[in-house]
Amino acid sequence: MKLPCINKERLWGLVQKLAEKGAIAGGGVCRLALSDADKEGRDLVVGWMRGLGLTVRMDQVGNIMGTRPGLKDELPVVVGSHLDTVSTGGLLDGAYGVLAGLEVVNTLNDFNIETERPVMVMAFTNEEGARYTTVMMGSKAFCGELSVEEVWAIKGLDGSRVGEELHRIGYAGDLACGVLRPCAYLELHVEQGPMLERAGLQIGIVEAITGVTWLEITIRGVSNHAGTTPMDARHDPGLVASRIVSRLPELASSIGPDQRLTCGRFSLAPGAVNVIPQEAVFTVDLRNGDEDALQEAERRLIQWIHETAAQVGTTASIRSMGRTPPVRCASPLVKAIERSAKDLGYPFLRMLSGACHDAQIMASVCPAAMIFIPSRGGISHSPAEYSSPDDLQRGANVLFRAVVQLANE
Amino acid sequence: MKLPCINKERLWGLVQKLAEKGAIAGGGVCRLALSDADKEGRDLVVGWMRGLGLTVRMDQVGNIMGTRPGLKDELPVVVGSHLDTVSTGGLLDGAYGVLAGLEVVNTLNDFNIETERPVMVMAFTNEEGARYTTVMMGSKAFCGELSVEEVWAIKGLDGSRVGEELHRIGYAGDLACGVLRPCAYLELHVEQGPMLERAGLQIGIVEAITGVTWLEITIRGVSNHAGTTPMDARHDPGLVASRIVSRLPELASSIGPDQRLTCGRFSLAPGAVNVIPQEAVFTVDLRNGDEDALQEAERRLIQWIHETAAQVGTTASIRSMGRTPPVRCASPLVKAIERSAKDLGYPFLRMLSGACHDAQIMASVCPAAMIFIPSRGGISHSPAEYSSPDDLQRGANVLFRAVVQLANE
Repeated sequence: MKLPCINKERLWGLVQKLAEKGAIAGGGVCRLALSDADKEGRDLVVGWMRGLGLTVRMDQVGNIMGTRPGLKDELPVVVGSHLDTVSTGGLLDGAYGVLAGLEVVNTLNDFNIETERPVMVMAFTNEEGARYTTVMMGSKAFCGELSVEEVWAIKGLDGSRVGEELHRIGYAGDLACGVLRPCAYLELHVEQGPMLERAGLQIGIVEAITGVTWLEITIRGVSNHAGTTPMDARHDPGLVASRIVSRLPELASSIGPDQRLTCGRFSLAPGAVNVIPQEAVFTVDLRNGDEDALQEAERRLIQWIHETAAQVGTTASIRSMGRTPPVRCASPLVKAIERSAKDLGYPFLRMLSGACHDAQIMASVCPAAMIFIPSRGGISHSPAEYSSPDDLQRGANVLFRAVVQLANE
Repeated sequence: MKLPCINKERLWGLVQKLAEKGAIAGGGVCRLALSDADKEGRDLVVGWMRGLGLTVRMDQVGNIMGTRPGLKDELPVVVGSHLDTVSTGGLLDGAYGVLAGLEVVNTLNDFNIETERPVMVMAFTNEEGARYTTVMMGSKAFCGELSVEEVWAIKGLDGSRVGEELHRIGYAGDLACGVLRPCAYLELHVEQGPMLERAGLQIGIVEAITGVTWLEITIRGVSNHAGTTPMDARHDPGLVASRIVSRLPELASSIGPDQRLTCGRFSLAPGAVNVIPQEAVFTVDLRNGDEDALQEAERRLIQWIHETAAQVGTTASIRSMGRTPPVRCASPLVKAIERSAKDLGYPFLRMLSGACHDAQIMASVCPAAMIFIPSRGGISHSPAEYSSPDDLQRGANVLFRAVVQLANE
């Protein structure tokens, strides 16, 4: 099929224009979910949707859906992502996926291309969880994992309530969540990691989205005097915790190259320079795209924590802070994306998404898949997040072809 | 010389009576320096001193000195320690040394023993540094390491000033610091460690008081996404910090059995479960009784920090938070103590003091030495701090004999 290309300048223009809403020093964006800046960004996108002739609907948790009709009244192919950002975010995380969706529609319109199925562009509420810590909140409500009542009651770090803020900014819609069910869900996103840049490849075809387990580990020992207690008479929980953290990379490689283990928090109590601590508390974030491997990593880590704690006469208690199993992308969608990349001559990598995305929630109600483009330096959640206009165009071209294929099947 | 023994019950009674001042739940004591409880404790001790016929003087930083005259008008033999405690302290740390000094005088009085030199019992202000963080403040002022103006200006963690509190509780004396110079200084103290109990010995003869170096180490790396950043693409400062802390025991044993290394504080920034940290900050407390060994430990630790940081592309900066060199106890005093222990038939250990004491400051103006008694479980700075009445008596007996020897030389 001979198909047109996405207009690079026009797409780049949308990105720049949206980035003015919530712009912060250093070229970044702060568009926390349901904030004034988020409202301004939403208003802009809704205006663009209407300008493209889309039928715009809002559901009760503020998810925005703009639909271009198909020749047949069937379930739509949905292109989606989110408009909210972390407090010091970049221009692309989330926004790129939604705006590329608009450009897909724009290009269909330009060339008067009609599709069998409707094409719907979707922007989910509060994917980031930066203000309301429930990540992927909008997609969870859309898929029935959270009720509207539960979502409205969620309290933000600033004390606000989702329900009140939705009404305040005018995005508590009338549509029940999940009514406009997709036949397929595609999400285009910046990689947020270094794999594509390292490999010198242009397109990432996501085969699976990582599972995530968060553990909080507390080691309890015996506090004592740093000067009077010989090294061999100590029951030092900080020593135990540091031994475990220092060997996370070895544990990860014993599982495989896709295993990731991260310690993000670490503290000692009472926290005095000259006191052997009584307690160490640290967290481990475990990720793997394969459920069996993730379970094995959890098992080995927990066993090893208890062994290491016992070695110096301390005890360990382990609390689960949450667990999301890995999600495999739908094989027909992955194939459609791969065909698109091949047709366009873009070198690609089949890969794992190490980050969480609305796509993994959507996978519970329809076939879902993701397309990645390179992130310079692997950086995201930062004003330094960057992908070139050429990269943005290539990703949107792959998305465009995949949408056309799926909407005509 | 046939000498009497210390009265065990009377000494134990003094300990119990003083412990009523600032008593806290669980059998401990909170007598923070220059607090109301400290004033009550001081008043009690000054009353006891007067009751024993001592001439009591206070210097300008609140150090209390009670003198029993000698046959000759020479420099006194001083027995000292401190009355202040940490916020959850025990009955013995500091108090025991002062009260045993009173019992030495009491026993001299009981048996009408006169000494050539005067005997002076001394209680230093703010040894602990729990309210005003300048540890060994009173002895530092006594020895000229701090001026009276500097001491009075010291601000407490509660916002109070030493000078104002000294006046408020009536312990800003008229005597210039350091006027009553000792010919020798002896300090009897609980060990605060497990060495005597472990060895099954009754008396510790301190040969040296540890040197202490405090370092704060900051490792700077690159913050990144816990899911999208492969293990081998990380510059994780938390990994570096934990590698260093986890191997402190090995570094200590490479220096020798008297080397102690302790990490008491450890934190990661930004401190999110799913973010590879940007910065790790931790402290190391290094102690050794030998200056060369302490310097070697510092050198190896610093070199190893930089090597470990460089291995994963992070940088380390190291800040000195303070350094106190080790102090060797005066050999003639150590010998006098050893002779006393032998005469009494008490099995003893020549040992290092891993904690800091006023004695190490006093060593700059006169010969100084220390006597230890066993601490049950090595515990101190806790309501659980305990030594038996028999242990208290044995330590005071050794002190009594050493004082009589030194005051008649």
